[in-house]
Amino acid sequence: MTNTTQSVTENLRPLFQPRGIVVIGASENPDKLGSIMIKSLADFPGPVVGINPRGGEGLYTSVAEAVAAEGPMDLAISCIPAAPTAAALREASEAGVGAALVCSGGFSEAGGPGDGFEEELLQVLEDTGLRLLGPNTSGFFLPGEDLLACFVPTVKDLKTGNISVVSSSGGVNLATCYNLHRSGRGIRLGLGIGGAINLTATEVVEYLTEDEQTEVIALHIEKVEDGPRLINAIREATTRKPVVALVIGRTDIKEFARRHTGSLDTSWQLTRSILEQAGAVVVDTEQELADAAIALSARRIAPKAEPKIAFVTGQAGPGMIIADRLQTDGIALPELAQGPFEKISSMLPPMTHMKNPVDTGRPAPGLREVIAAVGEDDNIDAIGAFAIVEETLNLTTEFIESGVQDVPVLAAVDGTVDIVGAAAAKAVEQNVPLVLGPTALAVGLRALAADARAQFLKNRPAVTAAALTGIEDTTALGLSVDENATGIRLLAQARRDNIFGVTVALGFGGEGLGDESVRVAPIVEGLAAEMLDELRGAALLRGENGRVDTVGVDKLLAALAAALETDQQAETISVDLVATSNGDLQVTGLRQPTLQPVG
Amino acid sequence: MTNTTQSVTENLRPLFQPRGIVVIGASENPDKLGSIMIKSLADFPGPVVGINPRGGEGLYTSVAEAVAAEGPMDLAISCIPAAPTAAALREASEAGVGAALVCSGGFSEAGGPGDGFEEELLQVLEDTGLRLLGPNTSGFFLPGEDLLACFVPTVKDLKTGNISVVSSSGGVNLATCYNLHRSGRGIRLGLGIGGAINLTATEVVEYLTEDEQTEVIALHIEKVEDGPRLINAIREATTRKPVVALVIGRTDIKEFARRHTGSLDTSWQLTRSILEQAGAVVVDTEQELADAAIALSARRIAPKAEPKIAFVTGQAGPGMIIADRLQTDGIALPELAQGPFEKISSMLPPMTHMKNPVDTGRPAPGLREVIAAVGEDDNIDAIGAFAIVEETLNLTTEFIESGVQDVPVLAAVDGTVDIVGAAAAKAVEQNVPLVLGPTALAVGLRALAADARAQFLKNRPAVTAAALTGIEDTTALGLSVDENATGIRLLAQARRDNIFGVTVALGFGGEGLGDESVRVAPIVEGLAAEMLDELRGAALLRGENGRVDTVGVDKLLAALAAALETDQQAETISVDLVATSNGDLQVTGLRQPTLQPVG
Repeated sequence: MTNTTQSVTENLRPLFQPRGIVVIGASENPDKLGSIMIKSLADFPGPVVGINPRGGEGLYTSVAEAVAAEGPMDLAISCIPAAPTAAALREASEAGVGAALVCSGGFSEAGGPGDGFEEELLQVLEDTGLRLLGPNTSGFFLPGEDLLACFVPTVKDLKTGNISVVSSSGGVNLATCYNLHRSGRGIRLGLGIGGAINLTATEVVEYLTEDEQTEVIALHIEKVEDGPRLINAIREATTRKPVVALVIGRTDIKEFARRHTGSLDTSWQLTRSILEQAGAVVVDTEQELADAAIALSARRIAPKAEPKIAFVTGQAGPGMIIADRLQTDGIALPELAQGPFEKISSMLPPMTHMKNPVDTGRPAPGLREVIAAVGEDDNIDAIGAFAIVEETLNLTTEFIESGVQDVPVLAAVDGTVDIVGAAAAKAVEQNVPLVLGPTALAVGLRALAADARAQFLKNRPAVTAAALTGIEDTTALGLSVDENATGIRLLAQARRDNIFGVTVALGFGGEGLGDESVRVAPIVEGLAAEMLDELRGAALLRGENGRVDTVGVDKLLAALAAALETDQQAETISVDLVATSNGDLQVTGLRQPTLQPVG
Repeated sequence: MTNTTQSVTENLRPLFQPRGIVVIGASENPDKLGSIMIKSLADFPGPVVGINPRGGEGLYTSVAEAVAAEGPMDLAISCIPAAPTAAALREASEAGVGAALVCSGGFSEAGGPGDGFEEELLQVLEDTGLRLLGPNTSGFFLPGEDLLACFVPTVKDLKTGNISVVSSSGGVNLATCYNLHRSGRGIRLGLGIGGAINLTATEVVEYLTEDEQTEVIALHIEKVEDGPRLINAIREATTRKPVVALVIGRTDIKEFARRHTGSLDTSWQLTRSILEQAGAVVVDTEQELADAAIALSARRIAPKAEPKIAFVTGQAGPGMIIADRLQTDGIALPELAQGPFEKISSMLPPMTHMKNPVDTGRPAPGLREVIAAVGEDDNIDAIGAFAIVEETLNLTTEFIESGVQDVPVLAAVDGTVDIVGAAAAKAVEQNVPLVLGPTALAVGLRALAADARAQFLKNRPAVTAAALTGIEDTTALGLSVDENATGIRLLAQARRDNIFGVTVALGFGGEGLGDESVRVAPIVEGLAAEMLDELRGAALLRGENGRVDTVGVDKLLAALAAALETDQQAETISVDLVATSNGDLQVTGLRQPTLQPVG
């Protein structure tokens, strides 16, 4: 893996660390895209030159001419229409350019002649080895390197930071970076993938895994081009730094998506589940993407099945919003241990809630001592604090003065524009993560817990089994077969997905419910129990003893997956199960409609 | 109703329109709560005087002395501890004060001696008719009247506007108002109810229904004191202006809540359902509360079962986020009619999506013409637009120049702090609602649709039925009885709720599912179908014809409710139903455990 990743770094050096940049399609007209791009790149430390075959003041007529005059040019930014792009990039490559950014659309996503333009372009890439970002993207920016390869002028206001954003969409890349900017945060890399005819989000994740200055990766996904490689990239990345992912497509927006960045070829639920399984924190909105990334930007909780969270609030009402949201998301808020509790009791008036959450009544002098006392509870894996901030209180300073250093912390404030702006600036200076509002605190704390849980879950021992070939094999896996068993019908299934390969599903049988959990190999110990717990109707399954007996089901899933790996013709193989009233799972049948090769 | 509401306006005049204000517990020390409160009130146009029995520079020793010197004092703000509060307010009332604000805690929520302090205070209220806001709240503010009865200094930065905020919690009131402030919006009234021992949120809603300057009410609810009166207040308010509500308590935060503002005596789900039934738009987070209020602040969609939404986006990726969220929330995005579609096609390059959403590719000149064309589609009830804003684009100006006037519009922008700040200021000046980010556009458009739908649903004809006394009565309602019918078990139940009175529930029978819909009387035509549609397992119920036959179930719910209205001893009455495979509902049994008086 190290070799592959190192080669990605090398391979993308012309794009992200160019010695010189040519802007193809530059002109003397300051309103043209090429001129705007050159203006964006004004502070780049290397040469940035405009190319126009008709010449013009300060412009070169070819890339070769520019290289001869100004030295090596690694990156070409194409600001010309789709039709002449392929030829222009071939010439650039011949002059030594190693990477290109193509902003314009008009390729296959537009149909018609665009299909031909894209074919030509792909041929150039194949012939030359040129790497290409786009087409149909607003570009990328590395503010810390003064490399703003983006035609949107306001990206010049973005500061550098330790969060990198990789988005399927140039627009969502910008929206996410502006969101982080409004929270006072800087950006290491912001990038919109666009048409993805060559460079994929997966490769950028691999690059960022090696990038020392990227400490969190925020990912927005409309489509996945390379499922197994993406899974691997996320698994590798999350061993070194957290990844937060927003996946679009809960509802049927396929037609819209196809016209944007290509088709959504696999399901929203499957993509989310697989990203989580690979170690990412999956979120629901672009605001959550930013807030979760901020929460994870300083330190992580060590891998753990059930991380425990505590928080301190300056006002009870927002505290209830935070507690309600955390508990809705399944995050445990355990009562504080006796020692810390007694310490806190001695500091606060009696009417407030002190066992977790800790309600201090309006944030008062002594907040840092309350935080310090919470930090003494060894059971707690991360500490949050919320306060409506007034001039006199700096919440991040309270965290630092508390001396809590062993666990991640997260501050959240509310107040006027000026006050939260000042608090955010101070937080960056102090390297204490800070978000805005009570819900953002809950989202951030949940992200810290979800990251730790995902790392724990992905590192469980693998379960292997020989390919399932018939119902009789299930008894060898520790399951019993009773075709007449009655109870709640379940289905265990392996399926071939055209993006991710062999996947497994476990859910309710029968039609119309759509209540199932999905995963990809490797199957690990405890996976079946975890999948059943996720079902909306999970409560239905618990037998009289309050449990479902999933012994053998992990192996069953492994054996189903192995069956599809063995027989590449088969699309699905399913085992029908019944959960009986005492919590046993009984096999009632096997379906393998296409397990045998057709014809 | 008019009389009651008028009397609320009169009754709360001393609180919200005081001729003079006394601050009890003022002192010469500028750091004391009383001094901070007097400073907050510095711009109030009437007299504001401090009271301290020990005297001091610029202070009076009693309210009577202050009245004699400065004229009538209608409002007393108590900044003294719980113990002396009752006596001080009795004296204030004797000097002509009609309303009080008590900020401090230490009453029944604290337990111990606090119970006694509260009893004394309640006795004063009973004896004098004094109205009291609090205790245990940060107070209220009417920026347009320069009446800032709140000890948080930064509320002076809030501007006046047409949105009023009524919150169970002083902290959430502040957080919501700051949130609106950060979106460039002003506040008509911001108020935290606190302990609610006298003035309730319901009364404030009644007051605001009459307040001409309040055009939207944003409500945050931790507990409901007076269920039937709240329902009525929301029903009345929403005939005149929209109400948006955030209800806390999805998870078990009862203990925390009890210590804050009292217990949560009824379920989260029930409160949400009932507020919607009364005409409110119910939201999930404090951010959604602000965004929905902004969306509804200019105009509403007329009452309608299924309002149709269209939106224009400057960038495809954010457009997909918006479309995905709207469709997840059940909001229809119909294809535009042929005429508008053809007009738009002629304006935009061919590769973009133009049928709804309309993707313009980067917002270009001509955006106003695209909006105008969408506005020509009579099928569309509200129009949104999203753009990442650069210096050259003002999205709200585009709306105004489009000439669209017949339907509500909502703008959403993204960008740097400065750019979105300027856009928000312009939006307020132009009275075009504007929110921040793609998800906020979806939340706001959904709020416009949900408001119109709620008004439609609440105005359906009422269904009445005689009290159900036995299973044989169900045949008279149009249902058939078959105790041996097989299929999916359902339960129709009337229950007595200790806050809202008689409620009805419809959901899956059997244990453990918790999948049910709840409502309160009056039962209206189509209610049963609407309730079944809400169930998580709704798909299970559709028979082979894709429908459930709910004829008779509306009447059954009315008859069940009537049974509990008739017999005040009964707590529940239930009818067991089975949904058969052809979509029929069969009555299979009746349970009325306490329908007969006990003993």
